[in-house]
Amino acid sequence: MRCDVVAIGTELLLGQIVDTNSSWIGEHLAASGIDSLLQVKVGDNLGRMERVLRDVLADADAVIVCGGLGPTHDDLTREAIAAVMGVELVHDESVAQVIRDLFASRNRPMADNNLRQALVPVGAELIRQTRGTAPGLICPVVVDGVDKVIYAVPGVPHEMKDMLERAVLPDLRRRNGDPSVIVSRTLRTWGESESGLNERLDPVIDDLEAAGTPTLAFLASGWEGIKVRLTAKAPTAAEAAALLEPVEARIRGILGDQVFGVDDDTMESVVLDLLRRRGWSLGLAESVTGGLVAGRITNVPGASQVFVGSVVSYASEVKFDVLGVDRGPVVSEQAAEQMAVGARRVLHADVALSLTGVAGPTEQDGMPVGTLCVGIALADGRTVTRTLRMPGLRDQMRQMSVISSLDLLRRELLALD
Amino acid sequence: MRCDVVAIGTELLLGQIVDTNSSWIGEHLAASGIDSLLQVKVGDNLGRMERVLRDVLADADAVIVCGGLGPTHDDLTREAIAAVMGVELVHDESVAQVIRDLFASRNRPMADNNLRQALVPVGAELIRQTRGTAPGLICPVVVDGVDKVIYAVPGVPHEMKDMLERAVLPDLRRRNGDPSVIVSRTLRTWGESESGLNERLDPVIDDLEAAGTPTLAFLASGWEGIKVRLTAKAPTAAEAAALLEPVEARIRGILGDQVFGVDDDTMESVVLDLLRRRGWSLGLAESVTGGLVAGRITNVPGASQVFVGSVVSYASEVKFDVLGVDRGPVVSEQAAEQMAVGARRVLHADVALSLTGVAGPTEQDGMPVGTLCVGIALADGRTVTRTLRMPGLRDQMRQMSVISSLDLLRRELLALD
Repeated sequence: MRCDVVAIGTELLLGQIVDTNSSWIGEHLAASGIDSLLQVKVGDNLGRMERVLRDVLADADAVIVCGGLGPTHDDLTREAIAAVMGVELVHDESVAQVIRDLFASRNRPMADNNLRQALVPVGAELIRQTRGTAPGLICPVVVDGVDKVIYAVPGVPHEMKDMLERAVLPDLRRRNGDPSVIVSRTLRTWGESESGLNERLDPVIDDLEAAGTPTLAFLASGWEGIKVRLTAKAPTAAEAAALLEPVEARIRGILGDQVFGVDDDTMESVVLDLLRRRGWSLGLAESVTGGLVAGRITNVPGASQVFVGSVVSYASEVKFDVLGVDRGPVVSEQAAEQMAVGARRVLHADVALSLTGVAGPTEQDGMPVGTLCVGIALADGRTVTRTLRMPGLRDQMRQMSVISSLDLLRRELLALD
Repeated sequence: MRCDVVAIGTELLLGQIVDTNSSWIGEHLAASGIDSLLQVKVGDNLGRMERVLRDVLADADAVIVCGGLGPTHDDLTREAIAAVMGVELVHDESVAQVIRDLFASRNRPMADNNLRQALVPVGAELIRQTRGTAPGLICPVVVDGVDKVIYAVPGVPHEMKDMLERAVLPDLRRRNGDPSVIVSRTLRTWGESESGLNERLDPVIDDLEAAGTPTLAFLASGWEGIKVRLTAKAPTAAEAAALLEPVEARIRGILGDQVFGVDDDTMESVVLDLLRRRGWSLGLAESVTGGLVAGRITNVPGASQVFVGSVVSYASEVKFDVLGVDRGPVVSEQAAEQMAVGARRVLHADVALSLTGVAGPTEQDGMPVGTLCVGIALADGRTVTRTLRMPGLRDQMRQMSVISSLDLLRRELLALD
């Protein structure tokens, strides 16, 4: 089965927003065993949107339209789909009520044009809106006597992802007839390049290609490390899982503790789990990352059971006054150690992690841009420090510092086992 | 003149790489006064590549093909273009020599398949390779008796950008009789829904649609507020800017201080500028956002001139011990006020901003999920507190809290003028 993707929005063509939605959709279609052979960006122009939909549907069995479902005059996806279906748009009171309730719950006045989002092509099935104001649509359409389908989802990524997982992908798999189940297992790795992993996993890849299943794919996710995704297809989920198990074991045997987690694990969730298991609390002292580590950790539900807080000591004075770092150079392993010890004391934490470094644009304390000094103060009072060299650009340096420092803490905690 | 973009690569469709090239190209085409109305991703399949090129060239005057120029068997862009041109591929010894020299200069053996990159469609003009091994191509093609052009550039971003700026954009501007320039101006707004803005700007939109230029578009950028983008086309940049000026002034007159910045401004950069102008330092006390505000602020280069630090007081004990908040409910305006006052004292900051609230999953201190209490301690010792209701989901609630609280601080600072 083939499902192509159309991303709507003049801002995409002008490069003001990068279309990451169709990439995410393509990845998840592939994991569901559905081909996506063409992905198109088109502007907020009714005629061109209609033309693109007709062109794509000439070859594809289905198309996912992303964006253009908002309330304003340049949100034209509903109109374009109705034109391709050859039907009218009708007001759906149930949708309208959800929109009114949403505004009411936020104590915000609702502009009337929001009700444009309650317009539904005759014959379309609704994907209820749970996060935004616009519902998604499942629109049956006949092309040259063949039954095909147009899915419409909002362009806001978290609304799009929710509707894809909740409604679009299951519906596609149903239509795909293929009763087999696809099960994926993603190993999260840190500390090795994609080509390095590829080389070390070469024998595994050869065997899998010979066998045909499971399939193995590398997904470079930048600041999140490299994902190794295994995908197996079988009559039942249990059988698919049974196919994955030995391959995962073999890969773990090769990569060792470079595999930090699976599937939805993140470096921060893994570190929190390791601490929770020992009943230890975590405190932070951040300089160069200025709160990014704390922000990532507190995005994990239940973080409050482990994480007590952070002293973001961006100014040197705060390092000296609040954390008790000795006056002098603040980008050094000694400063990092004192920051960690200070954070552990001030925040009454069992374990503390500290980061100090140079994000640039210029060097500091004679240390080049990209220098990261990490300090760890453990529950038994021991301290560990390390100096790492991060890639140069400011934002990249800071983001890499977050996961790199958490990985150091992870390895220290594992070493205690 | 219309120039569409085709990005080549199965990895793009599978979401293993996000296509940022066509966004960059679209942005630079617009700046050159050239429309780009369709941007397509297609896999490494000769038949489909050829089909897409023919389809795009049916409407567009030119097309830029990005990727598929490498040495391997699945690099098929040269073949697809030759097929559309209806010509042969011939070996170009001058290109071959450059490739041989490149490998020699890197002391690396050259695999023979690298010479595939010396194949050139008859009649094509070369864009010399200065960074990689593959040259770019300028390929004249006649479609239905009309002269059109296909540009081929590598998918490696820095090679692509070099060839675009050095050869493709100048060539397009030459071919484009109309030398007009497109200038955009983006007003950053906060505090009103897209539909609300649309309604308030209705008369402006009507006038612009009647006049044809400048054009106005809303870009919902989620947690960043709504962008109002004005775009004008004129013979010179100065004339285009002159077209934008009165419209921007009129919109600012209607929206007032809901416009917090323009173009690359962010809420955090604007707040930092307001503080810098008064020579005031900023400290934070974050609970519910757990470091996100500090992380955003410290991502602004030069933040260190204003921002001293933050006490991320996630655990109540840290609020009591470090910030001196009275024991008791910690999601209240009183707690927020004491957090701000405490942060101002502990961090020796002139101004402090505090956030405490409920991100969920469950209510806290009898306050529902989505509750945000903000505290501001100003340089003169005055304090301001506010309670806001944020949208429900954890991550969304936290991100909205970041910009909402910074906007409150912005308005307090503006009120001092």
